[in-house]
Amino acid sequence: MQIGMIGLGKMGLNLVKNMIRNGNEVVAFDLNSDNVKLAQEAGATPATSNEDLVNKLSAPRTVWIMVPAGKPTDSTVNDLVKLLSNGDYLIDGGNSYYEDSIRHSQIAEKAGINFFDCGTSGGKNGALNGGNFMIGGPSAEKFDHIKPLFEDISQQDGYLYTGKPGSGHYLKMVHNGIEYGMMEAIGEGYDVLDHSPYDYDNEAVAKVWVNGSVIRGWLMELAQEAFANDANLDKITGKMFSSGEGKWTVQEALKQGIPVPVITDSLYARQRSEEEDTFTGKVVSALRHGFGGHAMDMKK
Amino acid sequence: MQIGMIGLGKMGLNLVKNMIRNGNEVVAFDLNSDNVKLAQEAGATPATSNEDLVNKLSAPRTVWIMVPAGKPTDSTVNDLVKLLSNGDYLIDGGNSYYEDSIRHSQIAEKAGINFFDCGTSGGKNGALNGGNFMIGGPSAEKFDHIKPLFEDISQQDGYLYTGKPGSGHYLKMVHNGIEYGMMEAIGEGYDVLDHSPYDYDNEAVAKVWVNGSVIRGWLMELAQEAFANDANLDKITGKMFSSGEGKWTVQEALKQGIPVPVITDSLYARQRSEEEDTFTGKVVSALRHGFGGHAMDMKK
Repeated sequence: MQIGMIGLGKMGLNLVKNMIRNGNEVVAFDLNSDNVKLAQEAGATPATSNEDLVNKLSAPRTVWIMVPAGKPTDSTVNDLVKLLSNGDYLIDGGNSYYEDSIRHSQIAEKAGINFFDCGTSGGKNGALNGGNFMIGGPSAEKFDHIKPLFEDISQQDGYLYTGKPGSGHYLKMVHNGIEYGMMEAIGEGYDVLDHSPYDYDNEAVAKVWVNGSVIRGWLMELAQEAFANDANLDKITGKMFSSGEGKWTVQEALKQGIPVPVITDSLYARQRSEEEDTFTGKVVSALRHGFGGHAMDMKK
Repeated sequence: MQIGMIGLGKMGLNLVKNMIRNGNEVVAFDLNSDNVKLAQEAGATPATSNEDLVNKLSAPRTVWIMVPAGKPTDSTVNDLVKLLSNGDYLIDGGNSYYEDSIRHSQIAEKAGINFFDCGTSGGKNGALNGGNFMIGGPSAEKFDHIKPLFEDISQQDGYLYTGKPGSGHYLKMVHNGIEYGMMEAIGEGYDVLDHSPYDYDNEAVAKVWVNGSVIRGWLMELAQEAFANDANLDKITGKMFSSGEGKWTVQEALKQGIPVPVITDSLYARQRSEEEDTFTGKVVSALRHGFGGHAMDMKK
């Protein structure tokens, strides 16, 4: 089918290549014209603006937005709702907060546009060779129209229509919350090994765990790759960073009153890793000194 | 090669079948003679005692112990060290605590017996069709003697000689600690979904996550299976139970001074799940009542 792709970063560009390789026709736009050139080289028709992209598509149009969550997605959706027509399809494949997606869905619905919130997993390689998609939207019947696209670009059984608007990004949010916990568990386990009385080969450990253990899976394969490149990860620091979904999962759990200690601790561990020092630590140290005269670590 | 197998529970019996299917000769013993019969039906030579089993093997003998960790393993190792001869091989494939395995290794070494502590992963299906093994022991050279057995019964690349005595069970302990964290993260994520404003099909969610998502892996496949059998897990309670390795991982991390919040919380969540009520809860409730007159939940 014919798709307009807006946003040609690593994920968007790989999706374009995946779509074209599977017989789809793509019109591509990105604010960065270098990215548009890369899409053109991959076989896409270049567009110079959202409007140009919409004009190059035949009705009913299908536009896929793959831009950063928050303001960039907001403004792109707002722009497209004006440019698209009744009966067109709009897919947000980014990592939007599900409540934003509900709002986007409502704005789109008023214009007769079928909005789908699509959580995308599987990383850059998945985007290129077979991704993983969780898609919420107005109805299963409306989804049928864009289903052939997902058949083309997904891993086998790697897409799911998840129900009402927002349910795709909600599921992706929780997926990422689980991912936080799994990754932190792997990290902690390796930290114990690193301080153990034994001299483990990190890559060999990941490799044996990849092949038949209970904890086998893609994250362990990525650990093997990482240790193959840098046996003890000496080249990087332990700052982990985070981009929203873990925090949203914890906020959602708080809203529901559901304890999620592991996902919460994973988030805290990431946040802590970005701080050079903590005020918590200063306060505790001052108190220990106060009652017991314990040494404090004085600033140099 | 020829192996004596002591302990024919689900793991031991499946390993026997796996060994025989791959051309090995097995002499089998278990305290329960029904299990010995099952091993015999699978092609093993039955033995009536540890001594009988040792007598039916040719030197240098290889004996695999697959009995519960702790006292059963202790007494079996102590018995075998007396029965086996200089140059024989003894493998503990159970979930022993690594310090026990160091002790067993020392006892065995005094008698000239080559002791290997072998952490076994991959579950019952792995034991039968290709398991996962982390093996510590006296030296890589000594390991070479039993390596053909692991070539036969492992997944491809699914075994590793991990170094000094105790290192196999230590690695298995940490593997299980990671497993605790990963499983709790999956559980928490599903708990959020269960309380979400959406109506997710748990099995369909696991299925889409299995196929191309970042969190794909065996645990997610097992989740899919579980939800296929019982869509909302209505048939079971949330008591999780635990059998030692998670606790040992946390104890080891405490010894090293390494924070492992996620593995610790996973352990606490399991322990909490086994309590009908908590004294913590009573104390907190009494204090809330004390300062603010907040309602307490009175016993009926």
